[in-house]
Amino acid sequence: MTERFLWANSGDSHYMEPPNLYDALPEHLKDRLPQTERDEERGVETIRVDGQSYERPIPKPLTPERMAQIMAAPLEEDRDEQGGEARAPGAFDPDLRLRDLDQEGIWAEAIYPSLGIWTFNIRTPEIVKEGCRISNDFFLDFQQHSPRCVVAASIPLLDVEDAVAEIVRASNMGFKLAFFPVRPPLDRPQWQHEEWDPVWKAMEQSGMVLGFHIGTEPVDPTGRIGVYYRGRGGAVLNYVETTYGGQRAVTQLIAAGALDRHPDLRILVSEGGATWGPFLADRMDEGYRQHGAAVRPRLSKLPSEYLFTQVYASFQHDRSAVQAHAAMGWKNVMWGADYPHYEGTYGHTQKTLHELFDGVAEDVSHRIRIGAFLELFPHVPAPPGD
Amino acid sequence: MTERFLWANSGDSHYMEPPNLYDALPEHLKDRLPQTERDEERGVETIRVDGQSYERPIPKPLTPERMAQIMAAPLEEDRDEQGGEARAPGAFDPDLRLRDLDQEGIWAEAIYPSLGIWTFNIRTPEIVKEGCRISNDFFLDFQQHSPRCVVAASIPLLDVEDAVAEIVRASNMGFKLAFFPVRPPLDRPQWQHEEWDPVWKAMEQSGMVLGFHIGTEPVDPTGRIGVYYRGRGGAVLNYVETTYGGQRAVTQLIAAGALDRHPDLRILVSEGGATWGPFLADRMDEGYRQHGAAVRPRLSKLPSEYLFTQVYASFQHDRSAVQAHAAMGWKNVMWGADYPHYEGTYGHTQKTLHELFDGVAEDVSHRIRIGAFLELFPHVPAPPGD
Repeated sequence: MTERFLWANSGDSHYMEPPNLYDALPEHLKDRLPQTERDEERGVETIRVDGQSYERPIPKPLTPERMAQIMAAPLEEDRDEQGGEARAPGAFDPDLRLRDLDQEGIWAEAIYPSLGIWTFNIRTPEIVKEGCRISNDFFLDFQQHSPRCVVAASIPLLDVEDAVAEIVRASNMGFKLAFFPVRPPLDRPQWQHEEWDPVWKAMEQSGMVLGFHIGTEPVDPTGRIGVYYRGRGGAVLNYVETTYGGQRAVTQLIAAGALDRHPDLRILVSEGGATWGPFLADRMDEGYRQHGAAVRPRLSKLPSEYLFTQVYASFQHDRSAVQAHAAMGWKNVMWGADYPHYEGTYGHTQKTLHELFDGVAEDVSHRIRIGAFLELFPHVPAPPGD
Repeated sequence: MTERFLWANSGDSHYMEPPNLYDALPEHLKDRLPQTERDEERGVETIRVDGQSYERPIPKPLTPERMAQIMAAPLEEDRDEQGGEARAPGAFDPDLRLRDLDQEGIWAEAIYPSLGIWTFNIRTPEIVKEGCRISNDFFLDFQQHSPRCVVAASIPLLDVEDAVAEIVRASNMGFKLAFFPVRPPLDRPQWQHEEWDPVWKAMEQSGMVLGFHIGTEPVDPTGRIGVYYRGRGGAVLNYVETTYGGQRAVTQLIAAGALDRHPDLRILVSEGGATWGPFLADRMDEGYRQHGAAVRPRLSKLPSEYLFTQVYASFQHDRSAVQAHAAMGWKNVMWGADYPHYEGTYGHTQKTLHELFDGVAEDVSHRIRIGAFLELFPHVPAPPGD
């Protein structure tokens, strides 16, 4: 049986930072930006950032046998990989990347940092500012490799003026997406605070999409990004917990009136799943009405209306995603690959897409695979034959 | 136009503790159990518990004019009440309560404490143990007033042996539901920890439903229950944040294997909304598969299967709730009134039920309004004419 080859845009992909990314910076800056060092013998990777260091296990390399297993396995079968690492041949090379994508059926991608999420742990504005500049200069080249690459600009968030300046610069350079962590850097107020208002204004004016990638809460030296639990049940608990940060960030922007004041500002929540949207819409509306006397600021519309129109979200495998769109009316659900990370769909993308979309009405399938992404990034060409 | 009168069971209601509840206890115990004192002139209520005290504003009294406004208002219109307080005539009196329920169309209720949620802030096992005993003795009388009352037993959670003993005693007395906070008392490990295993075992053996009511995270003396945010956007942010505790508690029990080891244990998450269920099911499964190598313990089924069969949830106004059942397959969604609290449906229950269920297939409407509740509490008679 020959199955139709399904193309899908990815609302959630990553680039892998090259080891020499910050080499042009003076010693006192580059030493504090995120670096990774692998000790294959001990099987651990050490991440160093801002004078702190963290160890994490190196996922097992992907053998051809293992790849065959993954592609053959039902979705229910175990994987033995862990997140945050790349397993795809094209992880570090833009040409090989496009070959991977063509094989998988991934067309265009919203591409976030990998190591770069650790930048939000840094506490010195100058370091973050210079690190973001040099990173954006480098990844603009990467983006220019193909119109299928929509790379997220890095934004220095320790100082609001730095943030606004880099938003303007990145947008002028040609970036269409800016990467934000779901929670601001340590010791900064959360997103609903007045302090961030100039940032939302600049984002709207720039025309860039505000991309919150989940699992990016900055941590102090006693913590590790993405590790909220240890011990029994920890793997599932940690994975579930990551989603709440994205939901919180969206709630903070809506409740603070930022989406009301900036109707052209659009948000993409990447890798957080899909069906939280209609749920959160109901929950916000209930709070807004039932606690009406305490609500500040009043909004011109119900909170759900901002979510349904200005917020988009990417998921990988969620079985309920199609119904979040078709039955619950959230049209801004889009698929995501998490390429080239281990926990993504690389190696089984066609299988995943068929499991999700076979038997689904073509307009719904098209919107989730292709249309919602192109609405956010209209400069991207349509996939072949579309 | 005469509309059909709709009956619904409530998976989320409350009793109001009488001021003399703990009078029979020795002075050194009763002084530390939750008490409330109202200063009408200053418009504040003071809650005292375990040597700590908190103030909160007293919601405005419900005038007949205001009641008429609420009943006439579209759901979109503001309310000027705040949570945690009663506005219904039958709040303190079981006879008046049944009259209220008959008028509203609320048939049977899962009834949780009001002031009692503060008990989880107490740090002395003896106080909690004696407080729960005397409270359960008192509210057993309340429950016996009508088979429509399903009162949640209070469980002393500072000591696992105390908890197990009260679970056995309460079940033998005739309780069908036990109230748990979404997070254990301060300084106790979270629900996924081995320490709680005897509690889940005792709960399964008791046949009681494990009721997690949301917004019940214990707080230390610097915090206030249910207040996670202050300042701009706080009312909506706080209301949204309450739901995550219920989702976390469910994830903790599933990820720790408690529902796998105890297939007859059933959980009700009250007031947390509906559509989080299918979302959380997808999210847990993705984590379970994609981080398979790190998952401990392995489960006999996918996490979603425990959620879809052993977990129930109540919502009040969620527009997506019907589709969480009909389109996403979570059959255990049930309605809830939050009677007699201000943020509940008292005064507009028929309006709410018609908005939710008019035009919905009768089997779906019946299951959400009546059937799911009766599956948890089969001793409860069906509503009139059902």
